[in-house]
Amino acid sequence: MIRTRKTEPLTWIVGHAPDRKSVPERFVPATVPGAVQLDMARAEGYPDYNRADNYRRMTWMEDRFFTYRAEFDAPGLGQDRQLWFVSKGIDYRYEIRLNDTLLLAREGMFAPVEIDLTPHLHPRNRLEILLFPVPKRAGMPDDRTQASASVKPAVGYGWDWHPRLVPLGIWDETGLQIRRRSHLREVDVVYTLDDDLSGADLRIESRGAECEECRGVWELFDDRGRCAARAEGAVGQPLAARLENPRLWWTHDHGEPVLYTSRYTLRDAAGCDLECVEERIGFRRIRLVMNEGAWSEPAGFPKTRSAAPAQVELNGRRIFAKGSNWVCPELFPGTVDAARYETLIGIAAETHFNMLRSWGGGIVNKDAFFECCDRRGIMVWQEFPLSCNCYPDDPEYLAVLEREAAAIIRRLRRHPSLAVWCGGNELFNNWSGMTDQSLPLRLLNALCYRLSPEIPFNATSPLNGMAHGHYLFRWQGKDVFRMMNGSRFTAYTEFGIPGISPREVLEGIIPAEELFPPRPGTAWEEHHAFGAWDGDPSTWLGLPTLARYFPPAETLDELIAQSSLLQGEGYKAVFEEARRQKPYCSMALNWCFDEPWPAAANNSLVAYPAVLKPAIAEVRRACRPLCASARFARFDWKEDETFEAEVWILNDVFARTGPFVVTVTLRAGRAEERILRWESPSVEPNRNTAGPTARFRLPAWDTDRFGVELSVEGHPEMNACYTLMYRRSPRKRRCTSMNVTE
Amino acid sequence: MIRTRKTEPLTWIVGHAPDRKSVPERFVPATVPGAVQLDMARAEGYPDYNRADNYRRMTWMEDRFFTYRAEFDAPGLGQDRQLWFVSKGIDYRYEIRLNDTLLLAREGMFAPVEIDLTPHLHPRNRLEILLFPVPKRAGMPDDRTQASASVKPAVGYGWDWHPRLVPLGIWDETGLQIRRRSHLREVDVVYTLDDDLSGADLRIESRGAECEECRGVWELFDDRGRCAARAEGAVGQPLAARLENPRLWWTHDHGEPVLYTSRYTLRDAAGCDLECVEERIGFRRIRLVMNEGAWSEPAGFPKTRSAAPAQVELNGRRIFAKGSNWVCPELFPGTVDAARYETLIGIAAETHFNMLRSWGGGIVNKDAFFECCDRRGIMVWQEFPLSCNCYPDDPEYLAVLEREAAAIIRRLRRHPSLAVWCGGNELFNNWSGMTDQSLPLRLLNALCYRLSPEIPFNATSPLNGMAHGHYLFRWQGKDVFRMMNGSRFTAYTEFGIPGISPREVLEGIIPAEELFPPRPGTAWEEHHAFGAWDGDPSTWLGLPTLARYFPPAETLDELIAQSSLLQGEGYKAVFEEARRQKPYCSMALNWCFDEPWPAAANNSLVAYPAVLKPAIAEVRRACRPLCASARFARFDWKEDETFEAEVWILNDVFARTGPFVVTVTLRAGRAEERILRWESPSVEPNRNTAGPTARFRLPAWDTDRFGVELSVEGHPEMNACYTLMYRRSPRKRRCTSMNVTE
Repeated sequence: MIRTRKTEPLTWIVGHAPDRKSVPERFVPATVPGAVQLDMARAEGYPDYNRADNYRRMTWMEDRFFTYRAEFDAPGLGQDRQLWFVSKGIDYRYEIRLNDTLLLAREGMFAPVEIDLTPHLHPRNRLEILLFPVPKRAGMPDDRTQASASVKPAVGYGWDWHPRLVPLGIWDETGLQIRRRSHLREVDVVYTLDDDLSGADLRIESRGAECEECRGVWELFDDRGRCAARAEGAVGQPLAARLENPRLWWTHDHGEPVLYTSRYTLRDAAGCDLECVEERIGFRRIRLVMNEGAWSEPAGFPKTRSAAPAQVELNGRRIFAKGSNWVCPELFPGTVDAARYETLIGIAAETHFNMLRSWGGGIVNKDAFFECCDRRGIMVWQEFPLSCNCYPDDPEYLAVLEREAAAIIRRLRRHPSLAVWCGGNELFNNWSGMTDQSLPLRLLNALCYRLSPEIPFNATSPLNGMAHGHYLFRWQGKDVFRMMNGSRFTAYTEFGIPGISPREVLEGIIPAEELFPPRPGTAWEEHHAFGAWDGDPSTWLGLPTLARYFPPAETLDELIAQSSLLQGEGYKAVFEEARRQKPYCSMALNWCFDEPWPAAANNSLVAYPAVLKPAIAEVRRACRPLCASARFARFDWKEDETFEAEVWILNDVFARTGPFVVTVTLRAGRAEERILRWESPSVEPNRNTAGPTARFRLPAWDTDRFGVELSVEGHPEMNACYTLMYRRSPRKRRCTSMNVTE
Repeated sequence: MIRTRKTEPLTWIVGHAPDRKSVPERFVPATVPGAVQLDMARAEGYPDYNRADNYRRMTWMEDRFFTYRAEFDAPGLGQDRQLWFVSKGIDYRYEIRLNDTLLLAREGMFAPVEIDLTPHLHPRNRLEILLFPVPKRAGMPDDRTQASASVKPAVGYGWDWHPRLVPLGIWDETGLQIRRRSHLREVDVVYTLDDDLSGADLRIESRGAECEECRGVWELFDDRGRCAARAEGAVGQPLAARLENPRLWWTHDHGEPVLYTSRYTLRDAAGCDLECVEERIGFRRIRLVMNEGAWSEPAGFPKTRSAAPAQVELNGRRIFAKGSNWVCPELFPGTVDAARYETLIGIAAETHFNMLRSWGGGIVNKDAFFECCDRRGIMVWQEFPLSCNCYPDDPEYLAVLEREAAAIIRRLRRHPSLAVWCGGNELFNNWSGMTDQSLPLRLLNALCYRLSPEIPFNATSPLNGMAHGHYLFRWQGKDVFRMMNGSRFTAYTEFGIPGISPREVLEGIIPAEELFPPRPGTAWEEHHAFGAWDGDPSTWLGLPTLARYFPPAETLDELIAQSSLLQGEGYKAVFEEARRQKPYCSMALNWCFDEPWPAAANNSLVAYPAVLKPAIAEVRRACRPLCASARFARFDWKEDETFEAEVWILNDVFARTGPFVVTVTLRAGRAEERILRWESPSVEPNRNTAGPTARFRLPAWDTDRFGVELSVEGHPEMNACYTLMYRRSPRKRRCTSMNVTE
């Protein structure tokens, strides 16, 4: 939302004290938006918190009371003007005072602050924000459970890819505004598309302008600046308008993310424009509908319910959601700006992703995130800040959640990229312990119903029929190929394969003497390479899994190559298998896209701050709208076994295409075997085509891996390739290879 | 709720016309509450609609406009009095006029009507209620789908045990009230129990009394008439009170359904009592919590959510819910009175039932139903009137649903028997087609959250983990024993075994010449004996299933005995198996308890109007809080097979008991074989005890059935007995029995 009013920043200083009543002994310059930890670290000369275990230097700040202070002279206002203090986000519990008068006491980082300072102004003024310590639920250990009675993102309390570092401070745009006495507080534009999408009825409501003689003029401009609709009326009265043949907003892979501009102008009795509010609007209808085939399950009796719907229907089109789980790209959200969002979301779009799940363990992003997704045509599955905890039915918590969630909904509902509201992450699994009866989730459903009924709402992820995990290449004797081939779910909204970070990232966080070989107890461990997750000492570097497939790495680069191969082939296997399970399956979102600090190893595709891991190239291939694909029973093969590759053409495009000629070739060292030529039928719109299974008895090769190449004649952009592991059979190795390898 | 004001009935007449504008040509006396169909049938001398196909005589009334009319003289009111028209229910869409002035136009049978007639009174007055025809969703065939855009119970549109007969008319208490200008509209008493249930904080809110100088006096009396708490204050101000050590409300099988009396008195400035509102209150905490073991599922990855919680926790105690599905005991709910509820609920209590699921296909019962359940200690799972349809997201429907549902919630939430709110019946299965995203269900969740957050809410039944069905003794080659033994669900909220009605019921509905043998195309079919359900011509009489187990019945009484045996043994099998699956399973509610008209065959336990079927005696045995039980692999056995009986002691009592000595005896004709003696350990509170499996090779018996008796030494009240089928092996039969049977 763009207003003609401007927010003037203030110059802040910050200090801390051990209790609420004490005045800080010393103030240091503060960057706003930012975080108190960053201000203190700068003042104290702390080393880079991303490196080694330096972040621990900030731990002491969790339990301090911080005070932000800004001084300013009262501006000349005249009769018709007011001075407002506004903030889009102060994290977390705080009191705001002007010249020692308490103006606001509040808990919650998402509800915006708007305070008319005018009645309290002196010629010289001191504005103070007292921040309370990090909220911690009483009686809980130093982990995420401390976040379980507040609307504070849980991730900061420590996660398997996030150090314990809980941000505090002013984290979004904040400053002073001069406003007319009669000014707009809010303009809402709500539309209802015709069933056939051929037109839209619009309702425009403005609030706040207490100006009886004023009028509101509303105009809608298309993306070429032409006025497409207009309405005018008394301020405070809802306006109605009609738009014929709207150009619809589509995800980038299915069309154009068309945006209109809505402009509401407050006009006084003399016809002078006082103020205007502008926002981008996209016309689209988004639904979650039943997955194909899901209604016919369960069969038999006694019979339970069918699965929860997980199929995105955008503008009447059932589209496969490909994407990833978004986490805040910084430990301190206050430092994230539009350019940062732009870079990362650009990478997502280039990876053929059309959905990001904004995970409930983290913050709800700033406006720029959604503006970027609107523009780039990427859907957002937006969770409320609840994750992996049992949030209580307490009235105090519910009151904070209600205010925060309502503010989140009012802020985001205008964005066409907003595709799904979700109560939070994994709340209906045992490590969280919430249920359909939990009042926080019933409250969120009620709020979304009241404030944003046209957007689907899921209580949590996963719901029945949907699934999370696994997060390893190999688990309980099964590799990711077997795990996925044996699964049948409507939506894979989380799945991960760990991969090491690129060398440049590792060198930035791990002291040179610790770099190789990686060992527990070093910066590798601080950065999640060992014992990061679920009590498994091998997470996330996965040395035992690497050892299963590869000889011991002799250099860091070799280790990086091994880990990257598994991550790339593993992720490709999951994305492609999820796509092959279409139409029953409708979603594949890997865990996770980015990361908030440089992990040594992580499930992420993009290392901090925006370094592409090799695996993302494989994911990009797996997510091409139209491509060849092969299903394999497993990752590692042996001499004399009959290798099998089930050949597919994956198609998410809404056009008939083909026929194609696909050949399957194996490459092992210098050996090359063409094992199949398939003349496919033509490919139906938005339907995959299953082809034949190629079979080939694996000969004696002098290699530890082989490539499988699917070539599509005349369509190299559809080609696919895979790397699989190979082993000679021990007996044969003795007989035939002695001269060569031993 | 008892008020000191009295509702004076009016004398009504009723007539009909083909359209909205026409005045009925003729009026006939009307019984209020009742139904227009009954008034017309009486006036026209129609024969008993319960017999044969006589109900079809009423079909023409569906599409007529009916007008109720009552005339009355204005009473002397003076300055301080008003005359109100009040009704607890008018079915379905109507307009109310006084002396031709339109006072109310409304759709919905549940929201009460309260209209101040005073400003419109003449010396002589004519009150008219114009009823619109039966609501039918446009474009739908003549079945339940016609009910899918209104808050009209779907059952009247035809069900497998209900004829097509859609009631219309004034169906609950209706008449005139003289009120003071300053009168109470509503008194709400809300309590919060301490976590340990040792005390309750009460908040009392009154609405409506516009009387600044008046005071409200609230008193709480225990069941011995002693004042237990008291508060007093200005009218309109909430009162607060505290009750220490409340005696808790329990279901009849776990304690006493203790009720207190709340009395709110409106007192004028002079200290005179103007009016009082009394209601019964029970103190209890009801929750749905996770079933034991349900958190550990699913295992493995990819992992979906855990089951929805279905375990009732009453006052901190996890109790097994045993009961049945309640349907309106009359085709015309207007004719149901307190005595009728009393009789039926009394039978439920005697059957050891502690829960009734008030099914969403029917009406929400009158106050007397809930008052009786409060008193008898039976929990009510209350559904909103949505069933087996896809109710739309239309704003018009949602507006009616919101008003109706809010009225239902406000009326019922005060009852301690109210245990679960539920959006409706089987809405997440394919024959309905609603999903978690359906706005009607999100609205109901939101309303219940706002108005009744302390009561659990389920969007529908079944949810994941819970199950409905089967409804037959045998299906796809499996009998009910095999179906149930192979199932694992948290709650069986519907399951049925059909049974024929007792002879007295059959004689009342089927002409003598059609009575035996039953044939399609006769009154048997009108009364659901053939082709009633799901395209299955054998429902509900089940002749092919009877033929599988029994020789052809030669008399009606023989047929009744065969059918009743299957129903009794089948129901016993399901209830006992569900109990054996405790604690993972926590609920067993059969389909259905009663019936609204005499079915020839039905899943019901009580035939119309309140005739016990033999099966209910078996269900009563299966539901004893403490009893012996045996699990069988199937119903029918053969000579030479090794018969197996897994012996259990089922215990829902919260006390340690036993040890017991259980013997298992088989009886076949005069043969008697004691096949096991088990000395059980002592039985844990609220825990079943699994004993040994008795095995016995079945000898040559000259019988078609045998009995299995479990005797508990010194505790005959715990004994169990079963009847199973037996067949000689064909070869042996030839060799050894030729002389006897052939």
